Amino acid sequence: MLDGHDRVTGRIPYVLNFEVPGMLVGRILRSPFAHARITAVDGSRAEQLPGVSTVLTRADFAPQTPIKGVYGRVFRDQRVVAAEKVRFVGEPVAAVAAVGEERADEALSLIKVEYEELPAVFDEEEALKPGSPLVHDPRPQLDPAFSSLVGNLSDAGNICSHFKLRHGDVERGFAEADFVFDDTFRSPAVQHVPLEPHVTVAHYANGKLTIWTSTQMPHAIRAQMASLFNLPLTRVRVITQTLGGGFGSKGSLRLEPITSFLAWKANRPVKITLRREEEFVTVCKHPATIHLKTGVMKDGILVARQVRALFNTGAYTDIGPIVARNAGSAMSGPYRTPHVRIDSYAVWTNVVPAGALRGFGVPQAVWAYESQMDMIAERLGLDPVEFRRKNIVRDGDHYATGEKLEGVHYEELLRRAAASVNWAPEEAYWRKKSFAGSMSASQKKVHRGKAVTLVIKATITPSTSTAVLKLNADGSLNVLTSSVEIGQGAKTVLAQIASDAAQIPLEKVLVSEPDTDLTPYDQQTSSSRTTFSMGSAVVLAAKDLTRKLMDLAGEFMEVSADDLTLREGKVEVRGVPERSLGYADILRRACRGDLIGEGAFTTQGGLDLETGQGIGSVHWHQAAAACEVEVDTETGKVMVLRFHPSVFAGRVVNPRLCELQTEGSTFFGLGQALFEEMMYDDNGQVVNRTLGDYMIPSFEDGPLELRVTLLEHEGAGEIHGIGETSLPPVMPAIANAIYNAVGVRIKDLPITPEKILRGLKEKNIAEVQHF
Amino acid sequence: MLDGHDRVTGRIPYVLNFEVPGMLVGRILRSPFAHARITAVDGSRAEQLPGVSTVLTRADFAPQTPIKGVYGRVFRDQRVVAAEKVRFVGEPVAAVAAVGEERADEALSLIKVEYEELPAVFDEEEALKPGSPLVHDPRPQLDPAFSSLVGNLSDAGNICSHFKLRHGDVERGFAEADFVFDDTFRSPAVQHVPLEPHVTVAHYANGKLTIWTSTQMPHAIRAQMASLFNLPLTRVRVITQTLGGGFGSKGSLRLEPITSFLAWKANRPVKITLRREEEFVTVCKHPATIHLKTGVMKDGILVARQVRALFNTGAYTDIGPIVARNAGSAMSGPYRTPHVRIDSYAVWTNVVPAGALRGFGVPQAVWAYESQMDMIAERLGLDPVEFRRKNIVRDGDHYATGEKLEGVHYEELLRRAAASVNWAPEEAYWRKKSFAGSMSASQKKVHRGKAVTLVIKATITPSTSTAVLKLNADGSLNVLTSSVEIGQGAKTVLAQIASDAAQIPLEKVLVSEPDTDLTPYDQQTSSSRTTFSMGSAVVLAAKDLTRKLMDLAGEFMEVSADDLTLREGKVEVRGVPERSLGYADILRRACRGDLIGEGAFTTQGGLDLETGQGIGSVHWHQAAAACEVEVDTETGKVMVLRFHPSVFAGRVVNPRLCELQTEGSTFFGLGQALFEEMMYDDNGQVVNRTLGDYMIPSFEDGPLELRVTLLEHEGAGEIHGIGETSLPPVMPAIANAIYNAVGVRIKDLPITPEKILRGLKEKNIAEVQHF
Repeated sequence: MLDGHDRVTGRIPYVLNFEVPGMLVGRILRSPFAHARITAVDGSRAEQLPGVSTVLTRADFAPQTPIKGVYGRVFRDQRVVAAEKVRFVGEPVAAVAAVGEERADEALSLIKVEYEELPAVFDEEEALKPGSPLVHDPRPQLDPAFSSLVGNLSDAGNICSHFKLRHGDVERGFAEADFVFDDTFRSPAVQHVPLEPHVTVAHYANGKLTIWTSTQMPHAIRAQMASLFNLPLTRVRVITQTLGGGFGSKGSLRLEPITSFLAWKANRPVKITLRREEEFVTVCKHPATIHLKTGVMKDGILVARQVRALFNTGAYTDIGPIVARNAGSAMSGPYRTPHVRIDSYAVWTNVVPAGALRGFGVPQAVWAYESQMDMIAERLGLDPVEFRRKNIVRDGDHYATGEKLEGVHYEELLRRAAASVNWAPEEAYWRKKSFAGSMSASQKKVHRGKAVTLVIKATITPSTSTAVLKLNADGSLNVLTSSVEIGQGAKTVLAQIASDAAQIPLEKVLVSEPDTDLTPYDQQTSSSRTTFSMGSAVVLAAKDLTRKLMDLAGEFMEVSADDLTLREGKVEVRGVPERSLGYADILRRACRGDLIGEGAFTTQGGLDLETGQGIGSVHWHQAAAACEVEVDTETGKVMVLRFHPSVFAGRVVNPRLCELQTEGSTFFGLGQALFEEMMYDDNGQVVNRTLGDYMIPSFEDGPLELRVTLLEHEGAGEIHGIGETSLPPVMPAIANAIYNAVGVRIKDLPITPEKILRGLKEKNIAEVQHF
Repeated sequence: MLDGHDRVTGRIPYVLNFEVPGMLVGRILRSPFAHARITAVDGSRAEQLPGVSTVLTRADFAPQTPIKGVYGRVFRDQRVVAAEKVRFVGEPVAAVAAVGEERADEALSLIKVEYEELPAVFDEEEALKPGSPLVHDPRPQLDPAFSSLVGNLSDAGNICSHFKLRHGDVERGFAEADFVFDDTFRSPAVQHVPLEPHVTVAHYANGKLTIWTSTQMPHAIRAQMASLFNLPLTRVRVITQTLGGGFGSKGSLRLEPITSFLAWKANRPVKITLRREEEFVTVCKHPATIHLKTGVMKDGILVARQVRALFNTGAYTDIGPIVARNAGSAMSGPYRTPHVRIDSYAVWTNVVPAGALRGFGVPQAVWAYESQMDMIAERLGLDPVEFRRKNIVRDGDHYATGEKLEGVHYEELLRRAAASVNWAPEEAYWRKKSFAGSMSASQKKVHRGKAVTLVIKATITPSTSTAVLKLNADGSLNVLTSSVEIGQGAKTVLAQIASDAAQIPLEKVLVSEPDTDLTPYDQQTSSSRTTFSMGSAVVLAAKDLTRKLMDLAGEFMEVSADDLTLREGKVEVRGVPERSLGYADILRRACRGDLIGEGAFTTQGGLDLETGQGIGSVHWHQAAAACEVEVDTETGKVMVLRFHPSVFAGRVVNPRLCELQTEGSTFFGLGQALFEEMMYDDNGQVVNRTLGDYMIPSFEDGPLELRVTLLEHEGAGEIHGIGETSLPPVMPAIANAIYNAVGVRIKDLPITPEKILRGLKEKNIAEVQHF
């Protein structure tokens, strides 16, 4: 990793450490109620406190002003500060900018807000029941560009969006099936926990808004802030530094609006840095309830699947509909299923707004279908690996979305995953039971189990990235890109790609940080798309650049450009390496100070929201997970002995970074499998909102053995993103392995020791302890 | 001017006001001797002072280190801090970085330096005499890329460079001439006096040097700093903000090396801001002595010119050879002269190093030849306007450099200039004398005189600029350029050009500040080249961009791109304006986040240093000046009643900015004509180094009437730069008008009241006072 040394020596200039002369500190006053009408807001006492520059309240966005302070990528339902109502505990109600944090906190305490509490709803199923309190009434305004994301909904209560996938005839499928399984799986809200919290510095001067912010999508932030301030894009500049993590939490407007309006009103730069407890009420993974009904023939061939998935998107929409669609489109899993009917909903409730978290809804989906796959295998008495093998999609299949699949590698991924844990058919729980009697009669307390799971996952489609390359007079190369270095190694990988494509030594290649005034467009740094999408743009830009170089060199060397080739900073005559011109020489002879190449890479596609048909992904991300766990039946504690993710990478640019990403996904999944859960009290308040109370995995919790398999194309093929592909199968792999160890099936995450002990109690414990 | 409001409200973010967290203040210890050997430097006591981070001395550049600390664009003769010798009073000997200015100053006082004084030479003519002290001994190392700038010199003493122009046979010309005039004209050192002094912030971290600096050439600074630190260009980032003036003073390495090495050694950001008295010992206009020998026929036809020009480049070379060449190449003026022999020297002395000052040597040259033109006209009894008209170069002429001249407009410029002051042939001094007797016998104290002068001036050739345009999703446009906004309105003019070429409303166009990591190459912001060179690059980039737009639009509209045209942010079918697509629509339909266009503009040329033959300028800048002055014979005081510069602009992009530039040149010239002069004492110390002692013109000193004529091509033609074109003829215009008023010829600037009074005394005062 090119910036590895800077990272470990603490010299990365994160926005967290960024300062502007004369900068004020911003702090946010938050709602103590999950649902309430605001009857009064009075910031006057706070405003009079010495050292307080400004107080921002709903009065600053009065109906008569041109600045509405209302935003949201799908629904315009979010306000810079609450106006009529608050809809979750923690919602910003006012903000102050003051000379320091203490003074700002003191000012917050002087703001007087009066509330009239309203009934609230927290659970996604409760929210859909008749008579449930309405989170948004009337429905908020929809951005016309996003109407296709929401579905045809008018009087839909708390349904925010409804994605449908219709493939085959699911009723006929269930009628034909020998067995039908109907189960419900639940995933809780969890935190992203980037080490660097949300942080934004904003400065409004000379009619221009400049924002330094820890975000995964600088250009989207620019567009939304321009819209909020009624400015052309050129009047908003978003500068992003290397992020101290994001994992999807920094993929929408977060602190940018409130910080910018404070700065605008204060006429001074303002910085807001969230405290960890504020992180907990800012964004989280969607809690989800997934009802999964699967029809299967007795030989194990899948015939039908019906899903009703409820994604609890919290009080404000953000990208909930996209998460629901993304998860919904792949809920038949990597399996041939002739009849599929999926209804995937985003649902409003009075909890913390949810967003993407490394996998974009797919972890919740895979949690459901891969848990159920093992349940079906047991019921049918099939080896779960063989059962999966029988059903996996293969090259040339049409997926449930209607698109033809190519480059499908599940056979190999499954084979490698199974081999990595020495999977043998006789290890299935129900088979182990059958010879339990022959085992030692001693009461074993610790039991081992294994499992293998799969995932299919879309990468965002359509998608577009632009790159500009600037070849300098000394033959060094500036790569201009708006991809965000988020710890994943984007700068390293893009530098490698540029170095290779333009034949310039890596140490002479520099990849920029995003700056929307200067670096070209990138849609977002998420969805495991950077190496593929921006990498492709860089390759195209390098082609543009090197074509120009070869044209010039051809002229100077009096050779057709077709007879030239590139090698290590030189253009040389093919087959005559002694006839060559260095890049710097070419520029000098052309009297040029630099040479510019540009490339744009765009994928087309998209799904119809009413049928789920279309192109769901330019290519589908594929992975398998295999693990072995040890369960202590006395304490309920689970130890992951070994974990072996296998991921199809297409082409690996940087093996170590691919491994690190995949290892990171494993740890993320392990935390979500075993301990992570945001807990709410009855009033809708998150109770475990510190890292003392909310447990994330440490290296101590990690697998004793963690070995990554990166599967590649034969020959040169498309790069596949791997940044989050390996995460979704982790939770069901651990759950299935636990079941395999002790026969306890947990269907709601996380799989805590308490749940295992309860499961053991409910079972015949003696039976378990004897085999 | 787009940033006019920000300027007058003081909201331009100059580097002067820029701060980085943790920044130290740097201060420089300077030599008190004009020429001395340094026998000891001891910074240890300073280093121990609390609050002092580091002290930089020659010990940091010991011969055994890879960092030599030696730089210079032609000769590598300059050191970050002096090593063996100092060569002028004010040369940096050591520097400190400390927590504040006071502490830094205290630290300077603790640095102990021991000197052994050496004989010094200050005057350019003295320096060439045998036995003169040698400023550089041995001659410093020459940058091989610049050998053609210096001439064939080996044992040349204090001659730094020697440019020769050989055209025709000057001996034959003088033999044929009816009259030969031989005069010597002198120009002193003067200051640039930008309101923003030299200021640099440097930070060296993670193997990368970042410099925020008030410079006119960010890319050249990057290249030279990369060379100083042995880094590829990608490891040095130079960021420039809008400058508070430059006028040529910020066109080479100034504070960048010393600030960067302090930052590198301190491992902290460091800022150095020069005090005004330090500005005086940093750079100035070249003092020059020009011996001008001109042969002319009695009918006023010029036949021969021989010049020996000595440009006093001070203790260090910088761009002295380029100044000497640029001035030398045009010393035959805008006149047909069959036989020309020019020898133009840069000469080393022990005074403050000189650089370019708005006109690049040409003001010194024009001072000489336009003064002499009026002297010749008088001797021949010719009307000085008619005398000039007889000799001016015209379209199709070959200039003394051998190049064919096109687009020559002197006839019109001269006509307009003469008309602007109602010039009549009978107003010549010698004609006024003839009817003096008929005038009132009263002793007039105040006399009026008029004059008209011309200039021909090169713009730097070869030259290259690159521009990148980024069309955003909303149809707004980012213009990426490294042209420096120096107060001349570059950002406004480039935005206008981009707006016009890409058909995007001006308020949606944003021109970047230079950032060498991100903005494309520009050679320099000087030589009146920005509107022409970068403007042309912007037009080419707009062509590239709009071609792509039209290709996409043609596809979507199913029309050949050839049938499309652009208008106000739309592509429309030619002749069918109702069939059109907005830029934003095109991008959306193409699934693009932006669209990039790039353009590079390069001019070719250059002069042979031994003959002066070649292409001296891609086109020649042309101007005339006309003025009327009033001279008080009792006080010697001159009042400029009216001044009328006329400049050929090719095509005017922004009339008000062109006028302002030309008015600015007039004020600059007026200061140099009447009061500006850096005065040295016998030890080589500048004595008038405050703005209390050194007089620059105020609006009070300006012409009572100042009216600018901007002459344009008929039809659309090339843009000509006008940033400095009008300055050189100001000084001889005022001198000639003074002569015309009172018959006193001053040949050494400035024309102080004392010199006029002395001149009057030397003449028959009565004669003057009676006509």
